[in-house]
Amino acid sequence: VSQQSAVEYLAHGQIPFFRLPSVSRPAPLPAGTGAVILGVPYDGGTTAEPGARFGPFQVRRVSAFVQGWHSVHRLAVFDRLRAVDGGNVVFPPFDAAAVRSRIEAEVGSALRHGVVPFLVGGDHSIALPALRAMARHHGPVAVVHLDAHFDTSGPEVWGEPVHHGTPLRHAIEEGLVLTGQLHQIGIRGPWGAPTDGDLGADHGARVVTPDEVAALGPAAVAGSIRERVGDLPVYLSLDVDALDPAFAPGTGTPVPGGLTSREALALLRGLAGIRLVGMDLVEVCPGRDHADVTGYVAAHLLYEGLALAALRVPAVRPSPPDRE
Amino acid sequence: VSQQSAVEYLAHGQIPFFRLPSVSRPAPLPAGTGAVILGVPYDGGTTAEPGARFGPFQVRRVSAFVQGWHSVHRLAVFDRLRAVDGGNVVFPPFDAAAVRSRIEAEVGSALRHGVVPFLVGGDHSIALPALRAMARHHGPVAVVHLDAHFDTSGPEVWGEPVHHGTPLRHAIEEGLVLTGQLHQIGIRGPWGAPTDGDLGADHGARVVTPDEVAALGPAAVAGSIRERVGDLPVYLSLDVDALDPAFAPGTGTPVPGGLTSREALALLRGLAGIRLVGMDLVEVCPGRDHADVTGYVAAHLLYEGLALAALRVPAVRPSPPDRE
Amino acid sequence: VSQQSAVEYLAHGQIPFFRLPSVSRPAPLPAGTGAVILGVPYDGGTTAEPGARFGPFQVRRVSAFVQGWHSVHRLAVFDRLRAVDGGNVVFPPFDAAAVRSRIEAEVGSALRHGVVPFLVGGDHSIALPALRAMARHHGPVAVVHLDAHFDTSGPEVWGEPVHHGTPLRHAIEEGLVLTGQLHQIGIRGPWGAPTDGDLGADHGARVVTPDEVAALGPAAVAGSIRERVGDLPVYLSLDVDALDPAFAPGTGTPVPGGLTSREALALLRGLAGIRLVGMDLVEVCPGRDHADVTGYVAAHLLYEGLALAALRVPAVRPSPPDRE
Amino acid sequence: VSQQSAVEYLAHGQIPFFRLPSVSRPAPLPAGTGAVILGVPYDGGTTAEPGARFGPFQVRRVSAFVQGWHSVHRLAVFDRLRAVDGGNVVFPPFDAAAVRSRIEAEVGSALRHGVVPFLVGGDHSIALPALRAMARHHGPVAVVHLDAHFDTSGPEVWGEPVHHGTPLRHAIEEGLVLTGQLHQIGIRGPWGAPTDGDLGADHGARVVTPDEVAALGPAAVAGSIRERVGDLPVYLSLDVDALDPAFAPGTGTPVPGGLTSREALALLRGLAGIRLVGMDLVEVCPGRDHADVTGYVAAHLLYEGLALAALRVPAVRPSPPDRE
Amino acid sequence: VSQQSAVEYLAHGQIPFFRLPSVSRPAPLPAGTGAVILGVPYDGGTTAEPGARFGPFQVRRVSAFVQGWHSVHRLAVFDRLRAVDGGNVVFPPFDAAAVRSRIEAEVGSALRHGVVPFLVGGDHSIALPALRAMARHHGPVAVVHLDAHFDTSGPEVWGEPVHHGTPLRHAIEEGLVLTGQLHQIGIRGPWGAPTDGDLGADHGARVVTPDEVAALGPAAVAGSIRERVGDLPVYLSLDVDALDPAFAPGTGTPVPGGLTSREALALLRGLAGIRLVGMDLVEVCPGRDHADVTGYVAAHLLYEGLALAALRVPAVRPSPPDRE
Amino acid sequence: VSQQSAVEYLAHGQIPFFRLPSVSRPAPLPAGTGAVILGVPYDGGTTAEPGARFGPFQVRRVSAFVQGWHSVHRLAVFDRLRAVDGGNVVFPPFDAAAVRSRIEAEVGSALRHGVVPFLVGGDHSIALPALRAMARHHGPVAVVHLDAHFDTSGPEVWGEPVHHGTPLRHAIEEGLVLTGQLHQIGIRGPWGAPTDGDLGADHGARVVTPDEVAALGPAAVAGSIRERVGDLPVYLSLDVDALDPAFAPGTGTPVPGGLTSREALALLRGLAGIRLVGMDLVEVCPGRDHADVTGYVAAHLLYEGLALAALRVPAVRPSPPDRE
Repeated sequence: VSQQSAVEYLAHGQIPFFRLPSVSRPAPLPAGTGAVILGVPYDGGTTAEPGARFGPFQVRRVSAFVQGWHSVHRLAVFDRLRAVDGGNVVFPPFDAAAVRSRIEAEVGSALRHGVVPFLVGGDHSIALPALRAMARHHGPVAVVHLDAHFDTSGPEVWGEPVHHGTPLRHAIEEGLVLTGQLHQIGIRGPWGAPTDGDLGADHGARVVTPDEVAALGPAAVAGSIRERVGDLPVYLSLDVDALDPAFAPGTGTPVPGGLTSREALALLRGLAGIRLVGMDLVEVCPGRDHADVTGYVAAHLLYEGLALAALRVPAVRPSPPDRE
Repeated sequence: VSQQSAVEYLAHGQIPFFRLPSVSRPAPLPAGTGAVILGVPYDGGTTAEPGARFGPFQVRRVSAFVQGWHSVHRLAVFDRLRAVDGGNVVFPPFDAAAVRSRIEAEVGSALRHGVVPFLVGGDHSIALPALRAMARHHGPVAVVHLDAHFDTSGPEVWGEPVHHGTPLRHAIEEGLVLTGQLHQIGIRGPWGAPTDGDLGADHGARVVTPDEVAALGPAAVAGSIRERVGDLPVYLSLDVDALDPAFAPGTGTPVPGGLTSREALALLRGLAGIRLVGMDLVEVCPGRDHADVTGYVAAHLLYEGLALAALRVPAVRPSPPDRE
Repeated sequence: VSQQSAVEYLAHGQIPFFRLPSVSRPAPLPAGTGAVILGVPYDGGTTAEPGARFGPFQVRRVSAFVQGWHSVHRLAVFDRLRAVDGGNVVFPPFDAAAVRSRIEAEVGSALRHGVVPFLVGGDHSIALPALRAMARHHGPVAVVHLDAHFDTSGPEVWGEPVHHGTPLRHAIEEGLVLTGQLHQIGIRGPWGAPTDGDLGADHGARVVTPDEVAALGPAAVAGSIRERVGDLPVYLSLDVDALDPAFAPGTGTPVPGGLTSREALALLRGLAGIRLVGMDLVEVCPGRDHADVTGYVAAHLLYEGLALAALRVPAVRPSPPDRE
Repeated sequence: VSQQSAVEYLAHGQIPFFRLPSVSRPAPLPAGTGAVILGVPYDGGTTAEPGARFGPFQVRRVSAFVQGWHSVHRLAVFDRLRAVDGGNVVFPPFDAAAVRSRIEAEVGSALRHGVVPFLVGGDHSIALPALRAMARHHGPVAVVHLDAHFDTSGPEVWGEPVHHGTPLRHAIEEGLVLTGQLHQIGIRGPWGAPTDGDLGADHGARVVTPDEVAALGPAAVAGSIRERVGDLPVYLSLDVDALDPAFAPGTGTPVPGGLTSREALALLRGLAGIRLVGMDLVEVCPGRDHADVTGYVAAHLLYEGLALAALRVPAVRPSPPDRE
Repeated sequence: VSQQSAVEYLAHGQIPFFRLPSVSRPAPLPAGTGAVILGVPYDGGTTAEPGARFGPFQVRRVSAFVQGWHSVHRLAVFDRLRAVDGGNVVFPPFDAAAVRSRIEAEVGSALRHGVVPFLVGGDHSIALPALRAMARHHGPVAVVHLDAHFDTSGPEVWGEPVHHGTPLRHAIEEGLVLTGQLHQIGIRGPWGAPTDGDLGADHGARVVTPDEVAALGPAAVAGSIRERVGDLPVYLSLDVDALDPAFAPGTGTPVPGGLTSREALALLRGLAGIRLVGMDLVEVCPGRDHADVTGYVAAHLLYEGLALAALRVPAVRPSPPDRE
Repeated sequence: VSQQSAVEYLAHGQIPFFRLPSVSRPAPLPAGTGAVILGVPYDGGTTAEPGARFGPFQVRRVSAFVQGWHSVHRLAVFDRLRAVDGGNVVFPPFDAAAVRSRIEAEVGSALRHGVVPFLVGGDHSIALPALRAMARHHGPVAVVHLDAHFDTSGPEVWGEPVHHGTPLRHAIEEGLVLTGQLHQIGIRGPWGAPTDGDLGADHGARVVTPDEVAALGPAAVAGSIRERVGDLPVYLSLDVDALDPAFAPGTGTPVPGGLTSREALALLRGLAGIRLVGMDLVEVCPGRDHADVTGYVAAHLLYEGLALAALRVPAVRPSPPDRE
């Protein structure tokens, strides 16, 4: 079976994502692998509270409690997808450029082998090299971006062009994102300047605030995205601070008034059918979490992303019940 | 009056539930007692994070801050009901079978004296002996079950038939629950297998997910339950993980995407008029709580359950204002 | 510019509210100042968990991460308003009467200079001297009161007429609040006695529970308040326990079933246009907070209050973009 | 037997100190009672971090895990002493003078009945009324005072003569302490002024810093006290901040460099033979504790004080083994 | 090399003890393996605060920061010893007898292959099956037991003969411990009865309290043990509550007045030369830890145990420097 | 007076170190200033748990509770020294080289004005630019280095030559430290390689482990340092992880077995008379602290450093008592 059983897990000292098979990189992924989950323990791009470097460790640990059968999509996600834990991306942590090139290389390698990469950060600066690899492989992509912030800051703010507040700026400027295909959900709170949203707006970005998600319903928001992206390749970039701090306290730049966990999960479920080509889940900061509240919702959101990929895998045979 | 005043409380070293009169079991309950609240400090049936054995202590402590006049039902709950704190059920904690038989005996004793028992766990495995006592006294009962999980797992999962993931399985198999009268609210998240819901479904269980509670509104969900149970005896089994971890972090098997505190409270209020014959409130794990957030919502949910029982007590005389 | 930049802030050891200019009282406020934020580190009126005396320190620290451009009102709040941090009110902390008279004096001084005072508590007992100063300057005012509690308790409860459960009682009895202009939002939970709401009701208070806020929507609730207050002077008294403990755990008398952060923020935004003459934000208890969840929502709510004041300041010149 | 068994305790919802018999005041104490433990949930005299009002609740809860046979003194402490939990002292919490007079009355009542009173605070201001009752009954007493601070501040510091930094000042000035019989252990850290120690010094106080305790050994320090107090009545006033914050983080005015738990326990054991006439244990602040570290050491220190009293009770018959 | 480098570790998602090679049981251990570290995630024998089931996960995670060169013994511990992480022992967690037999089987298997087993608990009840395997292989052994408690309780206390308070009772009664070779270090605090130490005393146990460790010095205590055990096989059973709660808050039955981390580490270092045949490290309860304080000291104590085993491995060649 | 009074402090919203006068850099320091305390909110050199960037904010806040009269040296430290809070060093946080050059410039500027600089980090990498400024001004200096680690790692470990594990390596290699005048106190635990201490040893470093500090006594260790440094300029570099994690949990690379707070404080007091030319206090990580335990001991250690500088200031007139 694709996941270990619960007893096997408790009996297992080492914890791969979702109790999945684990592949020590750079060993090649097994034939038939549909998705690889990679930890990216890097938070050198953090402007406020650091600690997201330990995000992959927490999400791995907590994900052991997440089962495999999707009760809404009615799908054995891990069976269908054949996902593996690919370990963490290896890099010299004080060399930001080297970090980015290693991420880009790992993501590119997965894509070349037909494997959908899922990155677990780490801070949001890791989205830039992932998008570079995406665009190199697929051409510019549609981006569904859940976040409290635009992430299109300029270099004037912190004296540095690349950090966790800028990945979308560079992605747009480097042509990695299809015009009219940036979907930013969860944006809220005061801005630094009236022009904060201009870069995205000029690129045709659609911004949906949490209040709008509540008013329209997450299913409707997801439906309109699904309609607009059609069969374009979609990259999903999920900053856990898209959620309200009540639901995700363990993050470094919280903003009150965010999505509920139910809305975020429903949003992802509502994207069923999109052609997901990659995903990152970032800014999980375990040192600021309590009772693993953030870790759990992060693991479930990652699971929903994996389900989106699984839904695109043709069912060659009826997936057998994975009992537990 | 039924509750101590606030000053008396702060001046009081020992803390009974809701500042109620306290009866050290096995002393008999005073004549006229309408409800007894019993702590059940047992978590030997826990599969993940333990610690619910200390739930009764936290709920007692926090409940001291809960007043007695129900502002929606317009009712002096404790005056009308004459509730007492019956202490904790006494058992040898390493003998699970003995634990269950002691719970069954205590609950049965209350029922025989016409007193509605309220159990504060402890883990959810304590619901099985409570339901056995219920069925012995009332015959099979309707069950309103708030939980993130079905609690109908089989023995294959953990190598043991009775633990906190199985009380409803045994209750159904032992004929303790009326067919078509299992109402499961809050169920969500991935399942272990596609068959996870089959046992309940075959018994006519109605499952309402948190998304459905939000869509229908908690009052409507409660209304449809009220209609279906009519004047049948109803047992209310409330696992605090029915709530989202943001609202109830102090629990051992949290699942994101749950009920809000407002929904859970409204659901219980919406059941006004049902014939409540017993209740458990389980899986409160104080060691994982923060700022008593879980303890407070648990105490208020317990209060709502007591209010349901109080509403069925005829008002022989106008209940006097209990001032504080 | 009105706020320091983010780099300046991190480089700055001392943290004024929102990185604003800081004025050490009793130095006079600069000409043109539109609002002064004053900390009131006093919790001698607390009945349950103390610690709100350190609220001003936490809100100052956390507010450094709040930007200045209001993305809904499209307004550079601090530029328009010219707000300053006026330090804390100075008082002998064991002399409750002296505390109150110092608060009244400071608030009165601000009002006399045409400056809108914002108090950051501290416990809710500080609202009484603020309202006294308001009434002395403006005559009786309309009060928008967000809270879980009526705050109209009588002296019989704790053997003392003035504490954090009584400011509205005294304000009504002393004629500081306009009849029919007390708007209490967030009230919920069991009462001590059926008469708990009588004092307010007799004064024409309108009570809106969190369930009603959800049913009507916060914008509609705000709209009806706006309509009723018209151009009357409005004092906003915001006890952070109006929010559910999930959103604001760091407070001393939490009640489950409260407002979400989104509702509270929307409510304040919906009041745009009212004539705000003063505000307090109270009961933030940092020792019970986690990951600054309460501190952040408090800072954002305070920001929304400042925005309400800023909206009433005529724009003499187009406000320049404050970049960051 | 004097204590409940461990199983009885877990089965017991309400938690008296050390599982002792509990007497609801003002009911009279049973004949033969040797000591009464009284909670004093008052922290209105706190200058820094408040919260000690909940100290009695934590010490009660944690003390349930403390056994009764003293393995050094070889004595069944509770059997010999016949100690009871007398509940908390009742007072109106906002009236400091009334608080003090109620404490003085309760302590005086115990003394008149030949019962040794043990107070569990609450802040250190409660020591003053206790000493007043002591002096009224016994005449001036010897005082063994464990603390980081002199507690002889004057009214100029906080604008108030009576708070938790002043009990020893008043005790000396009111003639409650025998000249040359104030023993202050644990004093350390910077002072406010060079004269801070003068009041005590003029009264013949002996100050022993933690460094001196370490150099001499706690047994020797205790021995020299024992020698000096002879058979004088001794009052033991124990501020938990005498310990280093590593051993007692849950307190409001911590000072690094304090006693270890081993030193503090050995010091009390070393006083065996003194004529203890009363004790307070103060400044336990559970909201700032972690994993009950402070609560446990406080409960054990209280136990050592009770052992000192028990050692003075003649053994009329061989104390039977209290098995558990 | 024996350990991964630090960069490799951060880049590695899964965390074996001390970054050692990991062997998934029941795969056979590689030839030449000198020691196997096994997690035992079981806390079903806990009487007070549970949670030690997660101990192995925390110690693994934290041990990644522990280096390999012993600066006192001047030894590359992992190079010399060839230690591996053997995963966790697999068992059905609700069947205590099966848990014990699986532990006994795993420990026995290691011993038969000439590999020294190190168990990381879990609660102290796991020591009993380990000692059974020891005695079966080596005959009765000497036991060095660091603990706050005797762990020789009888069945009368909790109605059950085998739990975490009884392993030494059974080990003595079953003849697993050599007479006069039980060394109990760290014992302290009140006892349940004067006879609590009798079972050990009758078996010639030597008890050293923390005060005696301080008086003699840990090196002298270790020296006297070393002398008495000579070349007998020694089993080391280390309950982390031997340490004071200040140094090890994350445990379930803390007792103030314990060993410092320095004393405990020095004690183990002082045993250099003994013939260590097995070790357990138990009662690490991560849910009650703070900042991994307990996890770190546990990992270092485990490292010291491994060093003792390594010191007995002949150096066939000069151990190369393991650089990092 | 040099410090604000306690009431002034509570009434003051902004918190300078020790309630000292505050100077916003780059404004010049007032004439007569003897010492400047500078925050350095930078943790970009952290290898394990980050968060020390917020150290200056916590130490400032907590230091408000530290008084000014040194009861051992009998000296009004702040009166004699005329210390000021110079704010934080300003830098672009993602440019490590710029960070270092700004620190070097600020420290150099203080030295040129005859002011002793005290840096509050931030991570230990900030010591390198401080030492560069020291050597430029004073020539090579003696260094007293309290730490758990040598801090002389090479670039091979993390792929980067300059981070918080390397400042002493560069200081030695750049000739900033006098031969035979590196005093490393608190070093302990396993090393990465047998050669870890070679660089220091070759430079004549003296290493004193915590066990040696305990054996010799901190006063003797300090005495021998004092003797060896004579009147050489001494730089004190204090990594808070020199203390045991029980005394300083809030740090990023804890090692059990460290100094007690009493030893560390006594060590600094024992250096009375040395010619202190600068100090850093680093690796205080508030996000990992509990109840400000680490913050308090850090503030007191900083105070002891300031006292060492004050002792070298000639007393032109009898310092007046600074009362509080």
